[in-house]
Amino acid sequence: MRSGVWFPAAGLLAWLCCLGLGPVQGGKVLVMPVDGSHWLSMKILVKELSRRGHEVKVLVPESSLLIQGSDGYTTEVYKVPYTQAELDENMNNLRAGLFDGQPGIGDLFVNIDRLVQFTSLQSVGCDALLDNKPLMDKLRGEGFDVMLTDPFLPCGSVLAHLFSIPAVYFLRGLPCELDIKANKCPSPVSYVPKFFSGNTDQMNFPQRMKNMLMSFLESYVCTVLYKHFDDLVSRRIQDGMSYKELISHGAIWLLRYDFVFDWPKPLMPNMVLIGGINCGKTAPLPADLKEFVDGSGDDGFIVFTLGSMVSNMPEDKAKLFFDAFRKIPQRVVWRYTGDLPKDVPKNVKLMKWLPQNDLLAHPKAKVFMTHGGSHGIYEGVCNGVPMLMFPLFGDQGDNVHRMVSRGVAAKLNVFDMTTEKLVDALKEVIYDKGYKERMVKLSQIHLDRPVEPLDLAVFWSEFVMRHKGAPHLRVAAHDLNWFQYHSLDVVGFLVFIFVTVLWVTLKSCLFCTRKCCGKRSAKKKSE
Amino acid sequence: MRSGVWFPAAGLLAWLCCLGLGPVQGGKVLVMPVDGSHWLSMKILVKELSRRGHEVKVLVPESSLLIQGSDGYTTEVYKVPYTQAELDENMNNLRAGLFDGQPGIGDLFVNIDRLVQFTSLQSVGCDALLDNKPLMDKLRGEGFDVMLTDPFLPCGSVLAHLFSIPAVYFLRGLPCELDIKANKCPSPVSYVPKFFSGNTDQMNFPQRMKNMLMSFLESYVCTVLYKHFDDLVSRRIQDGMSYKELISHGAIWLLRYDFVFDWPKPLMPNMVLIGGINCGKTAPLPADLKEFVDGSGDDGFIVFTLGSMVSNMPEDKAKLFFDAFRKIPQRVVWRYTGDLPKDVPKNVKLMKWLPQNDLLAHPKAKVFMTHGGSHGIYEGVCNGVPMLMFPLFGDQGDNVHRMVSRGVAAKLNVFDMTTEKLVDALKEVIYDKGYKERMVKLSQIHLDRPVEPLDLAVFWSEFVMRHKGAPHLRVAAHDLNWFQYHSLDVVGFLVFIFVTVLWVTLKSCLFCTRKCCGKRSAKKKSE
Repeated sequence: MRSGVWFPAAGLLAWLCCLGLGPVQGGKVLVMPVDGSHWLSMKILVKELSRRGHEVKVLVPESSLLIQGSDGYTTEVYKVPYTQAELDENMNNLRAGLFDGQPGIGDLFVNIDRLVQFTSLQSVGCDALLDNKPLMDKLRGEGFDVMLTDPFLPCGSVLAHLFSIPAVYFLRGLPCELDIKANKCPSPVSYVPKFFSGNTDQMNFPQRMKNMLMSFLESYVCTVLYKHFDDLVSRRIQDGMSYKELISHGAIWLLRYDFVFDWPKPLMPNMVLIGGINCGKTAPLPADLKEFVDGSGDDGFIVFTLGSMVSNMPEDKAKLFFDAFRKIPQRVVWRYTGDLPKDVPKNVKLMKWLPQNDLLAHPKAKVFMTHGGSHGIYEGVCNGVPMLMFPLFGDQGDNVHRMVSRGVAAKLNVFDMTTEKLVDALKEVIYDKGYKERMVKLSQIHLDRPVEPLDLAVFWSEFVMRHKGAPHLRVAAHDLNWFQYHSLDVVGFLVFIFVTVLWVTLKSCLFCTRKCCGKRSAKKKSE
Repeated sequence: MRSGVWFPAAGLLAWLCCLGLGPVQGGKVLVMPVDGSHWLSMKILVKELSRRGHEVKVLVPESSLLIQGSDGYTTEVYKVPYTQAELDENMNNLRAGLFDGQPGIGDLFVNIDRLVQFTSLQSVGCDALLDNKPLMDKLRGEGFDVMLTDPFLPCGSVLAHLFSIPAVYFLRGLPCELDIKANKCPSPVSYVPKFFSGNTDQMNFPQRMKNMLMSFLESYVCTVLYKHFDDLVSRRIQDGMSYKELISHGAIWLLRYDFVFDWPKPLMPNMVLIGGINCGKTAPLPADLKEFVDGSGDDGFIVFTLGSMVSNMPEDKAKLFFDAFRKIPQRVVWRYTGDLPKDVPKNVKLMKWLPQNDLLAHPKAKVFMTHGGSHGIYEGVCNGVPMLMFPLFGDQGDNVHRMVSRGVAAKLNVFDMTTEKLVDALKEVIYDKGYKERMVKLSQIHLDRPVEPLDLAVFWSEFVMRHKGAPHLRVAAHDLNWFQYHSLDVVGFLVFIFVTVLWVTLKSCLFCTRKCCGKRSAKKKSE
């Protein structure tokens, strides 16, 4: 018997039937970036897409931190109802008190509160853009093929939906694993450690218990953290739609990690790992810097930064660092814009901005002193430089934990650090050859890949443009509610059937037994 | 407080610490293939590894079906306690009765029984190899870097373990999802359809129920199907070790599918999709064949094969095909070695072996009539030729189901086919342009990939050689039992704590209430 064509996956079939077949040679890319360090790596992809002939337009709020125009792409500046000073104050709020105390479980709530303040301001900016009808009409009219955005903030996903274009997400991960949850990626609590849990992928019973409790906490955090986003989505797209539901429609998730950095865990077909995208190319060092590091002799030099957001610290903390650097033979290149002591050691070069990756690529680089941002970590790994790490906030504690557990870094808490502890730690990382050996091996594994991360990111962005999405990589789990996803309805029904059959059988047996006994007793009586 | 280097993932750290760092330029590859169609695609990788300068040795049983020597690689023939005639009879058993009835749930058990007979014979062959001490000593002495094997049969994995070399697996998938289970890959029954269930990834309640019941059946099938393998592993490696446990140590799983063919589902970091590896290159057609298909005019031609194992069919069945071909204007190239009728139609060319991929690449190829083996399907997809499919046994029913649900193929059951049904089906696939259009789109999606499957397979084989495995891609779930994996111990403990606290609270309340009431009633009495 011949069966006709069966069309269960209606979306996929519509995609196969009705869409154009020709590849997009020069596509139109709309970019909604997230400001700060997030932008630094996305910019690399934006520039490369532009270099390969795509028309790229980056949406930039009037008040911004690091996003600027470039020869490579055009920008569209939109008005926001906050000033640069207000934004800066908001950012200062985010990094306030970093050097005061050891990050702990309590900091989770402080961090969440600050994050909500920061993202609320950004949501307000998004509302301003969405209300800007002339600009919205202009953008809609331009017929973009794809939205490239970082779902850390919601505006890009909202725009993609409103303009009916597929979205490509570019991120390290979202707070409380919203990316994993939205993409229906399994993440068993028994071996996938939760953020802030301090666990690795190898957990004993108490650690697994902690991990599970953290997963309950995570659900609460998600609710608090994404309330503004849910409101925005509900107001702008569909009443009752959550932010998680909106981003679940992302065509491709470009994720800035790999399993040299993260612990191995399940993936989904539309998750593309591009860890290390930010350390592809190195440029020559400026002459004075080159002279400084070239002249560091056999002792080599140390690169010290605390990330794009933190170039300053309290004077007493800075003194500890200066004192420690005085006691070591290595030279130090330090990104520092704070107050200077009278006697800055001669082996220390202070700079407002470091060519971090180029410095780490120098053969005399011995240690990378870093806060543990994912960008810096990958630059350390790419160049095989062991690290001394000072986690400050956000995902840094967990990032550092990953590197320390691989034996390629040591960790110091900035808040109770002493000069002696710092000197000891530096000596350990420099003179215990194990750190360097393991880091070189880790670096080799990281760099041994079939496609460079930047090429992979470009490929999948172009794929989405060529085929107007990637629904063949979207799991059908998105069409199920959590009850159905976990087969609870099926299990419930089977249990019901089983219990009913058992009950009927028991009742029948009892009935038969009574009948038999009744007959026997009647017989006895008659006898 | 500075934390020292923490070593939880001992295996990974040992890997980072102690293994050589240099890449293997020309590695030594031991290959334990599975005979029949499995070998046809593995051979492509074997030849390519050899071409790229690796020393490749293929282990071949004295009695075999399709495995032969080549200029590209060396073979090591080992004695087996069965003759070629016995092997052929065993194979004939496997394909007996294919044209007699519609495959159904009952065929599952027939297929299992035949499969067990086939694999038992192969297990006996494996035992003979393992008992061949001179050959085993010789192989062990050669210092191979990697074992390339198809875990459909157990000998390769056993040898890899005995020789302490990492294993790279090359497969389409294992019966009853043993590959998925062994690799701890999540596979939710709510949207990942079970083999033989007839489901797609979009299931309603009864279908999800069926899927769950099939998963129970699968557990039973696994036990029956792999009993011989479990025995072999238990005898040869470690008492009580199962085959699943052994293959869970595979470094990389090269899987011959992608999400153009299969429905999207979770993956693990060490699963590499190489679907379509078998249709990379085309060669010119032999002169007579070229003349035949070139001369097919606007009507074009049909390619008809039922796979490497089935080149014959009962005379009455063959007659139906000959009669149908007489009624269509297309020419037909048919792999057929059975008895010929007196009047073979002129538009039919019968051959003993077809250059299938080269024929399908011809612009005049209109339809691919196939049994639905995964190799053939990919050759159809690569070349954008819609299909008319006749599933016979094994995974073919499910493969065909995948293609039909994408609207790129129609299906006929060989057992109740008539000439009219066949002619109608051919006309539908040829003249309903939707089939061709969807297939071209599917083909474009399949071919639009960042790395060619063959290059990807070579890359990961070489990666395993260079780094002596890939433990950074192995999830920690392997170190948990099923109870721990599903966090049942943690949930149990939390429930216990909750119930205890509840009980103590209730008891305390009751105690207090009684005290209060007691006092009151005593007071009343005294009053």
